[in-house]
Amino acid sequence: MMDRKLLARINRNSLYKTLGIKVLEASQGSSSSRLDPAGPVCWPFPGQPHGGILFTVLDTTMAWALVSTLPSELNCTTIDLSIQYLAPAQAAPFTCSCRLKHKTGRLGFLEGQIVDADGKPVASGQATFRIIKFAMP
Amino acid sequence: MMDRKLLARINRNSLYKTLGIKVLEASQGSSSSRLDPAGPVCWPFPGQPHGGILFTVLDTTMAWALVSTLPSELNCTTIDLSIQYLAPAQAAPFTCSCRLKHKTGRLGFLEGQIVDADGKPVASGQATFRIIKFAMP
Amino acid sequence: MMDRKLLARINRNSLYKTLGIKVLEASQGSSSSRLDPAGPVCWPFPGQPHGGILFTVLDTTMAWALVSTLPSELNCTTIDLSIQYLAPAQAAPFTCSCRLKHKTGRLGFLEGQIVDADGKPVASGQATFRIIKFAMP
Amino acid sequence: MMDRKLLARINRNSLYKTLGIKVLEASQGSSSSRLDPAGPVCWPFPGQPHGGILFTVLDTTMAWALVSTLPSELNCTTIDLSIQYLAPAQAAPFTCSCRLKHKTGRLGFLEGQIVDADGKPVASGQATFRIIKFAMP
Repeated sequence: MMDRKLLARINRNSLYKTLGIKVLEASQGSSSSRLDPAGPVCWPFPGQPHGGILFTVLDTTMAWALVSTLPSELNCTTIDLSIQYLAPAQAAPFTCSCRLKHKTGRLGFLEGQIVDADGKPVASGQATFRIIKFAMP
Repeated sequence: MMDRKLLARINRNSLYKTLGIKVLEASQGSSSSRLDPAGPVCWPFPGQPHGGILFTVLDTTMAWALVSTLPSELNCTTIDLSIQYLAPAQAAPFTCSCRLKHKTGRLGFLEGQIVDADGKPVASGQATFRIIKFAMP
Repeated sequence: MMDRKLLARINRNSLYKTLGIKVLEASQGSSSSRLDPAGPVCWPFPGQPHGGILFTVLDTTMAWALVSTLPSELNCTTIDLSIQYLAPAQAAPFTCSCRLKHKTGRLGFLEGQIVDADGKPVASGQATFRIIKFAMP
Repeated sequence: MMDRKLLARINRNSLYKTLGIKVLEASQGSSSSRLDPAGPVCWPFPGQPHGGILFTVLDTTMAWALVSTLPSELNCTTIDLSIQYLAPAQAAPFTCSCRLKHKTGRLGFLEGQIVDADGKPVASGQATFRIIKFAMP
């Protein structure tokens, strides 16, 4: 589990600030985050975050779901991720929820989805992560 | 084909400026772009663009490959995209090259890859796009 | 919903007989099936169905989940499917459960998983289907 | 490289015989195979192999591309594979060509495509394989 202090530190990183991401929770293989997309990353559809921003939220939130099950000296990195865009992402803020489906010694298999402010699904995906040694700086 | 004037206009958009993307060429179903990742999107690995930024470059460059084959009143939107991370993205700038594999009346199937400054592959992917009516603002 | 008579007819097809597939249920966007893999398709790992057989079960079971929500003159065909292999498929029979996540006028987005006889996940996936006009012969 | 004798032995396996698969070549990270789909696996579209059969050809042909680069005591197993169906698979026989894009100590990244008798693409995909110890029986 990742405590409030660690989450607060993570949420100050420059990537999240630039895009508008905030991790809300990560514990026992589940995680959630919120995307309030920064204006500059809403393009080409006015008011809608680019699909790559939705991907970034999904990818990073999946990572925390996996990390929440690992000892502190381990971390993870994405091997591959497949994302589906279900509907236009028009109603911010967005909430992303992820879950570790299965873990082996070196791999983690994750799934996640993003819903809009009305709870309507806008994207979902599945991914394979590699478990690595890397302590967060 | 997208002429220099159109490319120049596209390359001024706020998403590209924020992340460090520049489309170089898009013609007859092929396209290429360059990523000089902005400092703030290089996280958590120092000096390396987040995987979501690589995804964004791949996704948007694929879109231009497809758009380059469409009449001006049509555009496209991603249905799904699978990305594989082959190696750490350490040596900027990165070059992304994409190709339209097949097109039906409503769908486009694309593939693309990203190489680092030494020409070493760092990511690759395939995607399905939907062809829609939408004129770039 | 697909009634018993229709399911019985579907389950007599030559593909299912050859591989060992039986659809159990398909109703309101959910479906399930059972795989008792035929001996000849268990290769190269003795006693284990080839990954392509697991894929086939997943793909066809997803299709029924979508079809269960369509009028009888419509059917569907796979645009793309991503499958993950979570663990060796050693304990037959296998059960596959699928769910329609989202449907638009022309597309269906599905997810599914396969568990072994002990309920342990062995594979899971997500897919995009196209809705077409095609009446089952 | 896999010599003629080894290929002949592989091509006698029960899975390939049941589906109609024959590996033609596997050398230095590239491989090809042929699918003459057996009648029983052509369903539900008359004369067309089920998408799962196309997947099986792609998956197994990718594996040989990777195996062709490995010492004889090593083999591989699919972690995940994304397949796209580009067009109806109507004109048999089909030819599948695969290529190892990148290999690390434990992982192989592959791509492949299937064309029909006229050379028209019907499916393509990308996959991640795990390198394991397993000698072919």
